[in-house]
Amino acid sequence: MTDVILVLNAGSSSIKFRAYYIEGGELGLGLHGQVEGLFSAPHFIAHDRHGEAAGEKRWGDGAKLSHEEGIQFISQFLTSHRGDNRLVAVGHRVVHGGEKFAKAVLATPDVVDELDKLTPLAPLHQPHNLKPIRIVAAMHPHLPQVACFDTAFHRSQTELAQAFALPESITARGVRRYGFHGLSYEYIAQALPNFSKRAAQGRTIVAHLGNGASLCAMHAGRSVASTMGFTAVDGLPMGTRCGSLDPGVILYLLEELKMTPQAIEDLIYKESGLLGVSGVSGDMRKLLASAAPRARFAIDLYTYRIGREIGSLAASLQGLDALVLTAGIGENSAEIRRRAAEQAAWLGIELDAAANEAGGPCISTPSSKVEVWTIPTDEELMIARHTRAVVDAL
Amino acid sequence: MTDVILVLNAGSSSIKFRAYYIEGGELGLGLHGQVEGLFSAPHFIAHDRHGEAAGEKRWGDGAKLSHEEGIQFISQFLTSHRGDNRLVAVGHRVVHGGEKFAKAVLATPDVVDELDKLTPLAPLHQPHNLKPIRIVAAMHPHLPQVACFDTAFHRSQTELAQAFALPESITARGVRRYGFHGLSYEYIAQALPNFSKRAAQGRTIVAHLGNGASLCAMHAGRSVASTMGFTAVDGLPMGTRCGSLDPGVILYLLEELKMTPQAIEDLIYKESGLLGVSGVSGDMRKLLASAAPRARFAIDLYTYRIGREIGSLAASLQGLDALVLTAGIGENSAEIRRRAAEQAAWLGIELDAAANEAGGPCISTPSSKVEVWTIPTDEELMIARHTRAVVDAL
Repeated sequence: MTDVILVLNAGSSSIKFRAYYIEGGELGLGLHGQVEGLFSAPHFIAHDRHGEAAGEKRWGDGAKLSHEEGIQFISQFLTSHRGDNRLVAVGHRVVHGGEKFAKAVLATPDVVDELDKLTPLAPLHQPHNLKPIRIVAAMHPHLPQVACFDTAFHRSQTELAQAFALPESITARGVRRYGFHGLSYEYIAQALPNFSKRAAQGRTIVAHLGNGASLCAMHAGRSVASTMGFTAVDGLPMGTRCGSLDPGVILYLLEELKMTPQAIEDLIYKESGLLGVSGVSGDMRKLLASAAPRARFAIDLYTYRIGREIGSLAASLQGLDALVLTAGIGENSAEIRRRAAEQAAWLGIELDAAANEAGGPCISTPSSKVEVWTIPTDEELMIARHTRAVVDAL
Repeated sequence: MTDVILVLNAGSSSIKFRAYYIEGGELGLGLHGQVEGLFSAPHFIAHDRHGEAAGEKRWGDGAKLSHEEGIQFISQFLTSHRGDNRLVAVGHRVVHGGEKFAKAVLATPDVVDELDKLTPLAPLHQPHNLKPIRIVAAMHPHLPQVACFDTAFHRSQTELAQAFALPESITARGVRRYGFHGLSYEYIAQALPNFSKRAAQGRTIVAHLGNGASLCAMHAGRSVASTMGFTAVDGLPMGTRCGSLDPGVILYLLEELKMTPQAIEDLIYKESGLLGVSGVSGDMRKLLASAAPRARFAIDLYTYRIGREIGSLAASLQGLDALVLTAGIGENSAEIRRRAAEQAAWLGIELDAAANEAGGPCISTPSSKVEVWTIPTDEELMIARHTRAVVDAL
């Protein structure tokens, strides 16, 4: 009999799952897949440990699945493919752990209630992250569940790096820089010793460039500063999010353009970034394939802002030993890696063009003063590791 | 008979004035002073070209002066001290020139009407800046007046440096990074050749650290990027302004704390920054003299953020040749200069401690890779120069 950890990563309209076999000291990926389009055109797809298709179902247009129904479907699918395995724990991605949770924790009902109170800090994500914990608890009250936070990795930052220049009365409400993508950065921090002692022990900036995008400055694998702040809209421009924005712009949109807070939220989260600037798409692949001047400008702005933020984070580290690019764009777009490195050329970066085209992992020349790497991230494996560690310590 | 240019710099509750004698190719400072506390306890004070007291008047508590009355008082004072001089033009500081005005212009009634339309972009400053132009025009319809803009110097920036990652529909309303303190930066750019060829021709960051504070990256004396954005609240923390702030914080204040836009404006403009963080004062001198832990933290945050922004601006320049500190804090606080340089030590800055204590102007060691200077700024003289140039070209 093999013990299995299930990882659930639930968003507003999708639930991703991954089963990991505990094989000695290792975690082996087993069945994995997702239900997407919960409220539009639900679609389930799963693959086995060998990457072979293991199941698929379409509910068709007009059908809707609740999160409960989605999780029940995943649960039934996994039960029917259980074989000789035993589910020992479920790990969940939870976007916000607030100031308190600096590491993954057993998600008891009391803890989930406490995490619920952080919903005002992440209204678009936190409720969707917590729902599956309650659904699974109702189905399997004695099964250990673990909450793993996108914020926890950044709690090593100094007070200075986390502070806004606001009065204590506001800061005391929890208005500070939390930083996100922490599970991705922690995975990279744990992977770095396999690639480079200097990057692992030195001053390293990791660029998580996916649909969401941020940068993290690490020293010896610990977070020193990050570009995402109080929310996941700050910092770099992203697929549809604006990134850093003069707070006076929000007041202008309210008072002069008479926009509602909801319309502003939609604007800065869903209609800005690459999509808003280009007017073409929020998908970097489409922009790179487009000849439209606004598409070129959107890419230029994206890489320019990466360059500016690398400078700012290098200051937080007082120098730079390595740059690591990861997540969808960072792992797959040699062109964006080339441009990001170009923006940081002044720091002593020399890219190895052939190695970059070939996909790395090391993409800097031997004489480059700063190492550059492209390394795939794996947030779900990081969640599985945390879940295992919490359960082992019970 | 000597020709005189009068410079007026009007704020919400004060009017500063400086008379400049045109003496050959030079502009010599003559009578200067201000009326402050217009709506609380008006107080007029003036000094002559030798720095001797030339006049003073207090209206006492409870008295109020309109901007008209303030300007009329200044006008009568100057007339009574006119001697053998002739007023040939009045130059005004105007915070916002929008996208159109990239240099100082003759402030005809049409131009003033056009500048009025920019009020939504700077509601706290623009009306006060324009009022004196209309008041003087009513008094002296044929006297040339010149509007000099805090934004104009930054219009040399690339589109990338000026862009937010917002949709074209919002950008087209004028929502972009304008940058401010341009008259100060232009003065420094014109002064730099007197101090250092390398700083004048190379990649230089100028830190205007006054009650408002910003940084400007210059290449060969032209603005490449700046920390203030759409409004004068962005970028560095200031006396009472927060500087950069995740836009999601504004939505949180609106939706979760139920603050009104006006209360948020007051918060980020008047209750944040050094004052808000320290809970003690927005005056750097008082903070430096305080032993309160929150005062120490406010200073630490101020200099930390200067360091981060220097890194970001150095990226915009692809390196750094010189750092210049100016304005109230930059000219007078050796301690803040020392700390700012310390934050930028990774860029190759070595401060000469004795030269710094002595007030410079050069405060870096001969072996420092980056020159560091402290140079007094003079926005009013810059306004007088622009005014003279516009009038000479008539």
